[in-house]
Amino acid sequence: MPSEKCRVTLKDIANKTGYTVNTISRALNNKNDISEQTKKYVKEVADSMGYINDSMAGSLRSGKTKTIAVILSDISNPHLAHQVKLIELSAIEYGYNTIILNTDENSQYERRAIISAYEKRVDGILICPVQQSEDNIRFLQSMNIPFVLIGRYFKNLDADAVLSDDIKAGYIATKHLIDKGFRKILFMSAQEYISSARERLEGYTKAHNEANLPIHNELIHSTNVKTGNAKEIMDSIIQSNINFDSVIAFSDMLAFEIKCALMCVCGNEADNIPIIGFDGVQSHLPLPFKYTSVGMDKDGWAKESTKLLFERIQYPTMHKKKIVRNVSLLNFDPVKGNDIT
Amino acid sequence: MPSEKCRVTLKDIANKTGYTVNTISRALNNKNDISEQTKKYVKEVADSMGYINDSMAGSLRSGKTKTIAVILSDISNPHLAHQVKLIELSAIEYGYNTIILNTDENSQYERRAIISAYEKRVDGILICPVQQSEDNIRFLQSMNIPFVLIGRYFKNLDADAVLSDDIKAGYIATKHLIDKGFRKILFMSAQEYISSARERLEGYTKAHNEANLPIHNELIHSTNVKTGNAKEIMDSIIQSNINFDSVIAFSDMLAFEIKCALMCVCGNEADNIPIIGFDGVQSHLPLPFKYTSVGMDKDGWAKESTKLLFERIQYPTMHKKKIVRNVSLLNFDPVKGNDIT
Repeated sequence: MPSEKCRVTLKDIANKTGYTVNTISRALNNKNDISEQTKKYVKEVADSMGYINDSMAGSLRSGKTKTIAVILSDISNPHLAHQVKLIELSAIEYGYNTIILNTDENSQYERRAIISAYEKRVDGILICPVQQSEDNIRFLQSMNIPFVLIGRYFKNLDADAVLSDDIKAGYIATKHLIDKGFRKILFMSAQEYISSARERLEGYTKAHNEANLPIHNELIHSTNVKTGNAKEIMDSIIQSNINFDSVIAFSDMLAFEIKCALMCVCGNEADNIPIIGFDGVQSHLPLPFKYTSVGMDKDGWAKESTKLLFERIQYPTMHKKKIVRNVSLLNFDPVKGNDIT
Repeated sequence: MPSEKCRVTLKDIANKTGYTVNTISRALNNKNDISEQTKKYVKEVADSMGYINDSMAGSLRSGKTKTIAVILSDISNPHLAHQVKLIELSAIEYGYNTIILNTDENSQYERRAIISAYEKRVDGILICPVQQSEDNIRFLQSMNIPFVLIGRYFKNLDADAVLSDDIKAGYIATKHLIDKGFRKILFMSAQEYISSARERLEGYTKAHNEANLPIHNELIHSTNVKTGNAKEIMDSIIQSNINFDSVIAFSDMLAFEIKCALMCVCGNEADNIPIIGFDGVQSHLPLPFKYTSVGMDKDGWAKESTKLLFERIQYPTMHKKKIVRNVSLLNFDPVKGNDIT
């Protein structure tokens, strides 16, 4: 029977054990009038038959799937994997399961992910959009599934969003380096259509303007937000004799890649070129080296994102909200411990 | 309509546009007899209405959900996140989506995950079992959902499994250190009920026996497989004056934690104590430090795991298979590049 995914019923267990349905029910619900021995036996038989009790099977009956989907770039990025974990933990508090779908920063995959989420009848979606165009998000809107944008937003599209303060992120990273005397800060950004990339660059510009320092265009590079090609880009920058004394990278993973690339070119001298990333992965990954990153309170972020989604599920017509969360400069040091500026 | 998750039909689009159902169908299927302009218009209207075409909605009709579940410890562990990504890519080749469910190494959560997978009517499950007992896997068997164990197995339970050669893994890590002259190798294992932990220790013992070296019991420690408490354990080992000259750790994440703990206690001297982990995370994470780990061909592993699961889905009665995959010593060096021994 279970092979057809038919439910095992209390009656099936009663037939198998010889007890009445009432006894089976009272035993499985741990009632006092049933002996411990009988409870144990009934539970074992129920287990062996693949019985699922009613409270666990609630969503099967209610029609609601009690499932949300998280659609994002790439679960194998430790920063995103950690975010998903926190979202999942937060969703469990609401009694919801989480499905994860990757876009690989590809619009077609994003469309497929949205359709998959729809097919699985999720009750809501948290999505970090690819942003090559607005089409997929407009498509999502047309399906009337509640959703919240996470980490990125569209200027011309009225949608719930939970973001980090990316202008401030770019600003504090740049100011930190300027204050330490660095003047040729290489800015390794992501594609310009990504809102967080644009805003971090805005922060970089703001810090330079504030300090009356010129912006050198040859120091600003758009890499692919997907990692893996930093070495190539760094090699070409070095071959072009572009002079830089420090680096800001769009993500921690990109920063680590750049550090490896610099170590290849100039060995231990690479330690003299500070690199600042974004995401603060060392807040959850114990990596044995000093490193500075801009990050946020991830747990609070995950809770706020899921909370907004569940509000939206409950109140479909409420005004759209755009929540921007604070960021800080994080100094990670395996010896001294971590420090937030 | 879509708010009720009713499907938008070709007829709805025909009504909206004034075209016939036949024209709508031909336009959406990109037939040559429909002008490009009409196709574009029909596609836009269909999109704006949240229409999903039939091939995409195939699983809605067929009853099969075309979904597998991956049940594992913790998606925020970069090694596991990478494995999930590879499984997902491999499942897509078969036209399947992937749901991820975490156990957090907790039997109760594992039970909940199995029930969630059942409720979502997945067609099959890949599971890295918690192993505190066999109960959950026996429960899974009783539900008749096809499943494959990944990474861990039970001696007394006949089930499909795709594993890595953990005895060899423990052996080559230990032999590598013995060959370099280390004699007091701290073995930081996980809970003994985990098959891979037991087998890696078996490999550690084998390498010592082969070299006619004694095993010092005070050098063998069972940590919790969940990371986060390595510093405490290392501090207590150091305070107990247990003498060690090198470390083997159950996972790369644990190895990194141990390295951080050693850096706290003895600063740069920590570099003189080699640490070898398992998993080979640096094969996909560009981390800027030298490191040695035991790992396997992860892509091949993911493909073999999903292949076996789909074989099992197709042939429920075929003999159970236990596949053990090879492992190698991986030397990661950001400057010299990576090297497999």
